[in-house]
Amino acid sequence: MPATPEQLRPLFYPRSVAVLGASSHPLKFGFQYLRALQDFGFPGRLYPVNPELNEVLGLKVYPSVAALPEPVDLATVSVPAPAVPAALRECLARGIPGAQVLSAGFREAGPEGRRLEAELADLARQGIRVIGPNCFGVYSPAAGITLMPGSEFSRESGPVGFFSQSGGGSCDLAYMARGRGLRFSVLVSYGNGCDLETVDLLEYFRADPETRVVGAYLEGVRDGRAFFAALKRCAAEKPVVIYKGGLTETGRAGARSHTGSLAGEAPTWKAALKQAGAIAAESLPDLVECLMACVCLGDFTGAGLGILAGGGARNVEALDAAGHTDFRVPAISSGTEAAIAAKIPPAGGRAGNPTDLANPAMAPSVIGPVMEALAGEPEVDALLLYQAVFYLHKEVRRYRAKSPAGPALKLDYHLELAEAAERIRRKTGKPLLMILPDVASDPAHAEMEEARRVARQHYTSRGIPCFDHAEAALSVLKRLRARNLRAGGVCDKFGGYPATPA
Amino acid sequence: MPATPEQLRPLFYPRSVAVLGASSHPLKFGFQYLRALQDFGFPGRLYPVNPELNEVLGLKVYPSVAALPEPVDLATVSVPAPAVPAALRECLARGIPGAQVLSAGFREAGPEGRRLEAELADLARQGIRVIGPNCFGVYSPAAGITLMPGSEFSRESGPVGFFSQSGGGSCDLAYMARGRGLRFSVLVSYGNGCDLETVDLLEYFRADPETRVVGAYLEGVRDGRAFFAALKRCAAEKPVVIYKGGLTETGRAGARSHTGSLAGEAPTWKAALKQAGAIAAESLPDLVECLMACVCLGDFTGAGLGILAGGGARNVEALDAAGHTDFRVPAISSGTEAAIAAKIPPAGGRAGNPTDLANPAMAPSVIGPVMEALAGEPEVDALLLYQAVFYLHKEVRRYRAKSPAGPALKLDYHLELAEAAERIRRKTGKPLLMILPDVASDPAHAEMEEARRVARQHYTSRGIPCFDHAEAALSVLKRLRARNLRAGGVCDKFGGYPATPA
Repeated sequence: MPATPEQLRPLFYPRSVAVLGASSHPLKFGFQYLRALQDFGFPGRLYPVNPELNEVLGLKVYPSVAALPEPVDLATVSVPAPAVPAALRECLARGIPGAQVLSAGFREAGPEGRRLEAELADLARQGIRVIGPNCFGVYSPAAGITLMPGSEFSRESGPVGFFSQSGGGSCDLAYMARGRGLRFSVLVSYGNGCDLETVDLLEYFRADPETRVVGAYLEGVRDGRAFFAALKRCAAEKPVVIYKGGLTETGRAGARSHTGSLAGEAPTWKAALKQAGAIAAESLPDLVECLMACVCLGDFTGAGLGILAGGGARNVEALDAAGHTDFRVPAISSGTEAAIAAKIPPAGGRAGNPTDLANPAMAPSVIGPVMEALAGEPEVDALLLYQAVFYLHKEVRRYRAKSPAGPALKLDYHLELAEAAERIRRKTGKPLLMILPDVASDPAHAEMEEARRVARQHYTSRGIPCFDHAEAALSVLKRLRARNLRAGGVCDKFGGYPATPA
Repeated sequence: MPATPEQLRPLFYPRSVAVLGASSHPLKFGFQYLRALQDFGFPGRLYPVNPELNEVLGLKVYPSVAALPEPVDLATVSVPAPAVPAALRECLARGIPGAQVLSAGFREAGPEGRRLEAELADLARQGIRVIGPNCFGVYSPAAGITLMPGSEFSRESGPVGFFSQSGGGSCDLAYMARGRGLRFSVLVSYGNGCDLETVDLLEYFRADPETRVVGAYLEGVRDGRAFFAALKRCAAEKPVVIYKGGLTETGRAGARSHTGSLAGEAPTWKAALKQAGAIAAESLPDLVECLMACVCLGDFTGAGLGILAGGGARNVEALDAAGHTDFRVPAISSGTEAAIAAKIPPAGGRAGNPTDLANPAMAPSVIGPVMEALAGEPEVDALLLYQAVFYLHKEVRRYRAKSPAGPALKLDYHLELAEAAERIRRKTGKPLLMILPDVASDPAHAEMEEARRVARQHYTSRGIPCFDHAEAALSVLKRLRARNLRAGGVCDKFGGYPATPA
């Protein structure tokens, strides 16, 4: 039976959590999970369960589920695989509505594991919803719960609902997403999915008002037909991005041994994802960037770009990327060209589309009006600006230290640019895509790399997606655009994005 | 006339440099170039030239080239474009062998610029070799000279010779390369290339004993036939990687306005690069990674990978990447599988190819023997290990703090792994490719990101290329392998790589 969203809410927003298999050994899941919830600041009631312990991490330990002072909302199970069925029976007897089974050693581990997993599925049908086994469970910032290795995930909620068959993949994704301004409503690492699986989660996120964009890492699905029907329903209401691992012959073998999934054939999957209206991601980093673009760019469907950079090779790279992804870089009117030429240095600079700003240290008071002029062109639908934090930062500092207007200028260059782009978008509806390459690559330049990451926050918190290179930006934009054209505008418009504190 | 390598040595290893157009204004090239050489620590004699100044940055300023106390090895010219011919005439009269013209406003700027540039080419034929115009000049760490915006480039020399039509592109590349262990013999930003151009530079780097790998960013070439002949000669002796910008229709227009180049057609270029034996890069970051692979992996031609990761999704991603790039992931013998199984945790781990290490905090004392076991398989030619610095770092710290063996363990996890991989390579000849994804993406995790960059140094300084994701690693490896198969082993073997201080 697919779960109703109401059935899942206690699992995703628990006020009380029991940990079966609580441990005092720092390498055991039953220790690390407790510690992660404490570190993360879970505000609810936390009950370790283990008949052989009295206390762990300052918490009283209960000998059994029966002995708990209340039937909790969520049981986290980390006992060895053969003991999991008995643990779930205890939970069932106590009327606990849901459990997440972190333990491995099930379907992915051979015949005995398959038998055990079938037993879990039977127990689930008797009245407890089960996440896992072989998973890291639920990250729900509003409820204050996180994955076992997720104590450093963001405490802020946001518009992305995510589910993943892989626990490690969930973690990599959440950490990659954090610095790109992505915040989650709920993230579910559901592992082998003996009970709750893709259909339940798609239905939940479709119905969930907190979730505006849905993402998933999948290796296989239990019932392909039901999955694609649920995907189609969800994608008709919200953008959905799927990274399907194991689409090559070598990858399929890996998916089978990882989560016991039958991964399916690449052409079938790709055609089905497209037909269902989902965006197909090619890797975990690509998945993160697709989600960022969905959140920041909403219902964008344009095909014309206005490109500007401080340096010709950067423009050539952006133009090549546009050529590879079928975006147009329309010529601009002579009036616009003259307006831009009046702003930029004559030597080294070049007005037009693209505009070469001559050097990467150009002041926001120049770049802002150039962006605005390009955005004023009717055939330009989005802007693409390519800057490098590293020497820009140094040059700008040097310049400002010498400039008589120095103290009157705002301190942060990228904050100024982000605000200018935000104003232009409010006025024209045309978004900016920002490219900040990874040039401070040496540990000796750690301060500059940190500045790049702060700059990225200035952009993403204002709905400006920020990429490492132009090829990635436009590959992602192309897929978002195709999705939006098919979906006929079913997507949030800019303005709904909750800004994260910069 | 193509330059001989002997003609270029004074320009690339100058003991004295004059700066024509020296300035005291911090935004002028003639100031910034002087300052860059001072910051970089140029050990030779530096002579600013400007009839209107007496002193700048603590240096005596000379009124003219004629007034200099010696005929310098290299003149750096940053006067406005119309004044450049006169400046070169002064240099010619003084017998200066070479000049780099940083000034813009030539071929890229219209008819008058084209006329001026032709004048420079005429002067060059009268006996001075000219780099530029519209360039940043020469970076030569052994000589202590750098590009105008290159004061933070590495002071160490290395095996990569590089030339670029783009100044900004040279800078981005040098900064991206720095943290990936790449060091340069000489890097030349040659801009419009009115005199010295691709053929001269290919011949120089082919002959240069310091240079073992050659790279270039090109927008167009003066003489296609001569270029491809020189490329073929060079690529027959050393790996050459070319990123040709402007290979799409939109990109071509940009290349024309940037350096006035006629960029050519994509199919012609791609076929010609392949026929000449060069590796084609797709973007600047890709160019950096190709160069890193050439330096680290030398004459690698294998097709079989041994894959290991702490987490199933990472293995699936690596397997999919192998599938996309035609690498094999051969099954391993039951003996090897048993040896691996004895090392890794039974729950969550999985011995085989790939091997799932169960979690990303696995100790080097486990990973080392697993790598060694995989490398012992006859069909495995290279290893691919996928780890994440972020929580690995934290988990490992936590574990070691508790472990009784803690103080006896080496402090740096990745240093241990890098040393293990180095030993395995010495013993078996099989290299490691390392994947360290960008998971510490938030400024709040800056310390972890710095740790990732330090870890990257541990790997690259030991000849282990280090990538952000598996797809990039194997895309690069595929091209290196194809190049080496065509070249029949004309490439350095591992062992020659000069380690950079870790």
